[in-house]
Parts: sequence; C-alpha cells; structure tokens
Amino acid sequence: MQGKLITVEGVEGVGKSTNIEFIAQHLRSAGIKVILTREPGGTPLAEDMRQLLLTPRDETVCDTAELLLMFAARAQHLNEVIKPALQRGDWVLCDRFTDATYAYQGGGREMGFDTIAKLEQLVQGDLRPHCTVLLDAPVEVGMARAKKRGALDRFEQEKMDFFERVRQAYLQLAQQHHQRFLVIDAAQQLPAVQADITKGLAALLAQVKL
Amino acid sequence: MQGKLITVEGVEGVGKSTNIEFIAQHLRSAGIKVILTREPGGTPLAEDMRQLLLTPRDETVCDTAELLLMFAARAQHLNEVIKPALQRGDWVLCDRFTDATYAYQGGGREMGFDTIAKLEQLVQGDLRPHCTVLLDAPVEVGMARAKKRGALDRFEQEKMDFFERVRQAYLQLAQQHHQRFLVIDAAQQLPAVQADITKGLAALLAQVKL
Repeated sequence: MQGKLITVEGVEGVGKSTNIEFIAQHLRSAGIKVILTREPGGTPLAEDMRQLLLTPRDETVCDTAELLLMFAARAQHLNEVIKPALQRGDWVLCDRFTDATYAYQGGGREMGFDTIAKLEQLVQGDLRPHCTVLLDAPVEVGMARAKKRGALDRFEQEKMDFFERVRQAYLQLAQQHHQRFLVIDAAQQLPAVQADITKGLAALLAQVKL
Repeated sequence: MQGKLITVEGVEGVGKSTNIEFIAQHLRSAGIKVILTREPGGTPLAEDMRQLLLTPRDETVCDTAELLLMFAARAQHLNEVIKPALQRGDWVLCDRFTDATYAYQGGGREMGFDTIAKLEQLVQGDLRPHCTVLLDAPVEVGMARAKKRGALDRFEQEKMDFFERVRQAYLQLAQQHHQRFLVIDAAQQLPAVQADITKGLAALLAQVKL
C-alpha cells in the first residue's frame, strides 16, 4: 500500500499545532502509522535552511532567494523523509507544504503563482498532498492568538495586509483544488473545529482498508 | 558607465585564488574600481548558505536541493552585491559563478544543463558575465595541488572521474560561449599563465574609456 500525504495549512495563530496533534491521534487510533513533520524543515539540513529563512537579520532577504531556499529545503525533505515514508505505506502529516509557498510568497509577497508552479513541478513532479486541511480564520483572530504566545518571527512581524493576502491566496487554492482541500472554520471553539476535522477526514479514512 | 562582471572558473587546484588577485591588481592598475567576491557566498546570508553546501555532513544532500540552494545564494548575491556594483559602474570580479553550476551540478553530478538554464533565466534574467576566465588543466594537476593545500571539502572529496566531467563541461561551455570565455592553460608555470591572462584581458580593457 502507498501511504498518504496530509498537509495542514493556515496563517499564524489558527491552531495548527494543536490540531495537527489531534489529527495524528485520530489517524493513529484508526490503525495508521503516521510520520509527523513540518516545512520548512523535516531533516537536519532542511532545518538549518529553516533557520536561515526565519531568523531575523539585518540583510534583506530577496524574494527569489527566499523562494529558492524554501524549495531547496522541500527537495531535501521529500527525498529524505516524505517519499521514503509514503513508499513504506506510512502516512505523512506535514505542518505546512507547498500551498504555504503559494500563500506566503505568491500571495503575501505578491510574487504570483507562475514561478512557484514551475518550481513545484521541478521539485515534486506529480506528487501533491492527498488531503490539505486549511484552518481558516479572519486575520485578526489568528494574530491576537499568535501575539499571546510570545515573540513573533520574521514572517510574523509582517503587516496585517500581508496576512490578509496570505489568507486570500489560501482560499483561492482551496477553491482551485477543492478535491483535496478541507476548509475548516478555525474561528470556532476547539471542540467544534475538531468535530469538523473528524467529519472531513472520515471520507479519506473510509478509503483505507484496515 | 555600466560596470563589467568578470568571473574566474576552474576545478580545484588550478590557481584560482592567485590569479584572481593578479587580475584584480591588473584591472586596478588600469584605473578600474574592482569589487572582489565569490560564489557560493558574497553576502552574510549567502555565505551561510555556502556553509550548508560545503560542510561535510552525514545527511546526503539531494542533487535538486543542492542546485536550488546554489541559486538561492546566487539570487541574494546578485541582488545585494553584484547588481548594485555594476549599476555604480564598478567592475565585479567573482570567484566562480553560474558556469560552475553547469560544470559541477550539470556535468559533475550529471544533472544536465536544461534545469540549470531555466533557473539561470529565473534568477539572472539576461545578466551574463562579460568575460569568464577559465583556468584549465588536466584533473591530476589540479588535484595534486589541492591536496598539498590541506583538507578537502565535500566537493573536493569526490572522485577523479567527477572532476573529469566537470572539466569537460567547462570546456563545452567555453566552446558554446566562446565570445566571453578566455581559456587559459593553467598547467603552465605561473608567469606564463599570467602573461596569457594579461593578453586575454587587453581586448576587454581596450573597450574601456579611462
């Protein structure tokens, strides 16, 4: 059996970490072996690249360098972790993936989708997530929660209109790839969010012969 | 006046460092302001990427990750150092550039030239070196000199046939872009090498109104 790649997406503060844990437990209780990982990162080298991307520094990182570094980390992560796991039949649950690049670099930094699509093809070939859980909430909700958590990293320091563009890009992707996207209203209370996730994943789990 | 980009290429041990110094002095003595830089690297962030590329580690770096990281560093270097210098009218003398990517990743790692050409276009647009000094010598000559110098980095540890492919790719590029390539026989004694470089640069310097 070939494993499945499940990605979880959303702007800061929408509850990604909590709900990734929930999804992992939900899948495991259905007897599935789940590999938890994240992007950018997921291997020692890719985590070093993540540090380069997220650490605030005096030098302005140009958009193209940021985009290529993101895909370099992704290539390494795919090669070392994701593809071997899927080939073993494990499921991979990934905190952000290429949709985040479309949303943050394409939408947020207004680089558009074309160059990203070319790099996606170069790095991933035909590999796409089987299911993408998009935790969606108005930007103010997410930012308020993120601030409560402590220091903001380089991306989080960006302005509100940046995050509004990110959110809109995510919603555009969800519409464009509606077969694989599960859009969850993350402004709800946690039990309601998790009930929606459970319901959404049921169809995917029904396909699995256990 | 728009500055010129001069790149110096060649496998390990052909005398790049010595001859870059010589070229810089030669240009400066002609009244040209020269910025000395190198790839991968040339900015603090790009130098951090260089470290990721060159430090030996247990994790195998996949070819695509290496290639994208190389171009990420290049994008940053172009944006922060090379383009601003050329716009000021300075000349930029760069220890390796995109021809090294064609030679090492395209030739050495046998990735071919197509993907590299696409990334070159994406990152550089129409920007190409005005002159590329290729220090060419049989692989055995270069390797013997490199070993005398001390420890070999991750690339230098690769086998002889890798370097033979790199050399052949460089020679292919020199033929393909003969207008900008200056191929120097680096197996000669240093005074003869530098006489050839001086002669080769004369045509370029003749174009400059001082």
